[in-house]
Amino acid sequence: MDAPGLVLGSGDDAAISVPEGATATSVDLLVEGVHFEIPPFGLADVGHKALAVALSDLAAMGASPREAYVQLGVPADRDQAELLELADGLAAVAAAHGVAIAGGDVSRAPMLLLAVTVVGAAADEAALVRRAGARSGDLLVVTGELGGAAAGLLLLEDEMFAEALDHATADALRRRQLRPEPRLAAGLALARTGATAMIDVSDGLGADAEHLAAAGAVGLEVELARLPLQAGVAAVAEAAGRDPFDLAAAGGEDYELLATLAPGQVDAAADAVGAAGSKLTAIGAVSATGAVTLSGPEGPRAPGGYDQLG
Amino acid sequence: MDAPGLVLGSGDDAAISVPEGATATSVDLLVEGVHFEIPPFGLADVGHKALAVALSDLAAMGASPREAYVQLGVPADRDQAELLELADGLAAVAAAHGVAIAGGDVSRAPMLLLAVTVVGAAADEAALVRRAGARSGDLLVVTGELGGAAAGLLLLEDEMFAEALDHATADALRRRQLRPEPRLAAGLALARTGATAMIDVSDGLGADAEHLAAAGAVGLEVELARLPLQAGVAAVAEAAGRDPFDLAAAGGEDYELLATLAPGQVDAAADAVGAAGSKLTAIGAVSATGAVTLSGPEGPRAPGGYDQLG
Repeated sequence: MDAPGLVLGSGDDAAISVPEGATATSVDLLVEGVHFEIPPFGLADVGHKALAVALSDLAAMGASPREAYVQLGVPADRDQAELLELADGLAAVAAAHGVAIAGGDVSRAPMLLLAVTVVGAAADEAALVRRAGARSGDLLVVTGELGGAAAGLLLLEDEMFAEALDHATADALRRRQLRPEPRLAAGLALARTGATAMIDVSDGLGADAEHLAAAGAVGLEVELARLPLQAGVAAVAEAAGRDPFDLAAAGGEDYELLATLAPGQVDAAADAVGAAGSKLTAIGAVSATGAVTLSGPEGPRAPGGYDQLG
Repeated sequence: MDAPGLVLGSGDDAAISVPEGATATSVDLLVEGVHFEIPPFGLADVGHKALAVALSDLAAMGASPREAYVQLGVPADRDQAELLELADGLAAVAAAHGVAIAGGDVSRAPMLLLAVTVVGAAADEAALVRRAGARSGDLLVVTGELGGAAAGLLLLEDEMFAEALDHATADALRRRQLRPEPRLAAGLALARTGATAMIDVSDGLGADAEHLAAAGAVGLEVELARLPLQAGVAAVAEAAGRDPFDLAAAGGEDYELLATLAPGQVDAAADAVGAAGSKLTAIGAVSATGAVTLSGPEGPRAPGGYDQLG
């Protein structure tokens, strides 16, 4: 696939681009046994997720994705058909979002690993939204629905948790874990309607709210009751003896976008995100305190999340 | 360190740049147990080599290096001091070549692994030298000296092979394997003096010559007797019962540059490469045959090299 500005793709010592405006570049690493297991992940799921989570970082900047570079480590016991399956998973995500796989490197490794670099573009640097920038009085908003990836992981670990769910709802939850979708159109919509700060929900809403708060030297007050739960999350939580708001706030990997906006911009942003095929929910506010509080029916609790080195 | 065009480095969802002209982007993956062992590699050597071999791809384009992105996989038994040592190795190479470490990602992995993405720049796309472009009648040239990395690996595997060498020569050979230097200034000099095609010698001179020949749909005739052997390579080859030209032509990892030039440009290129602190040796010629021949005192032989999936 051709991407704007890409002159020469894979096959040489380096890819050549002639970019215009500002570029946003992000890297992600997925390691078998650490970030995924096969099964429940299939090879196509792995390819899909590796590129999707990298693109999610571009969504969180409001960047338009352009190029991806994939470094693949492959164990000797994986055959050609399995690698093609993985490549198909990557290629489908790339095609869906107009991304050119512009380069790569394949080598032996003791387990499957994918290191993905993505490059996105914007008209200029001011069009890209950083983690820093939230102002006291802004509202905190989140796209889409939360808790699905954590509930999906529980279903993949124990089929019994699906007993109270219809087939389609259970499938959607599993898919949320296996094949997350980067919110690129929603990120662009939020950037254009005045998001003052933005991050993607990868580590968990609580942990990512702490990243936003720290970057902006502000506080965030999140009302757990307002979190938009994906259908079936409450039922899985009950079956597993978990709090549904824990799945939504600490589970991570939903790859929704968490952003701050001036109150007067929220309606316009909600319309733009709606037009981009998602939805926007106000879940809290920015304060000057420098702390993150998650307030539930039983009062405040500590923000939790997934520590990538934990 | 600041790089031209880099607006925002690590710590956000993506780094932000405002590049001018053309960019060259390359990725490399180094996996413990596949590409290096500890020992003989120290942690600083690993950091050095991961960035150096990635930058070597930019050298082979004639690009000026700008930014690097490092994805690090770290086993649980590596402590903070070891990671700082590795970071020091990376940082020293970055500083030596004016490269900003603009982003990164650290996660757990069963073994140490580094996936490095490097971005370089040129005034425009025509200033970057590709693998394709060699013309029948061009001369084949190589920078610096060959065989050192393969001889160094033999020394690291068996100290006995160093018996006929003085200390400084043996050290230089080991260092060639552990801490290769990307020929960035020489690559720029070759690009500016009219290199028609270029590649770095990573897989081995024979294998990389085949890549050049295939990309340009030309033949290459290499005279083995002309290969510039690093001091000590012949002695190590003799001690190990190996042919020194095998170490130079099939050993790989010397990270010198192999380029083609019109005969009338070779003197100017040699001067420019000399001014860049290296040297240039004519080792053969481009033919129209579509094959690579390596001719030694005993006649032609098949090109060999390191197959990255072998």
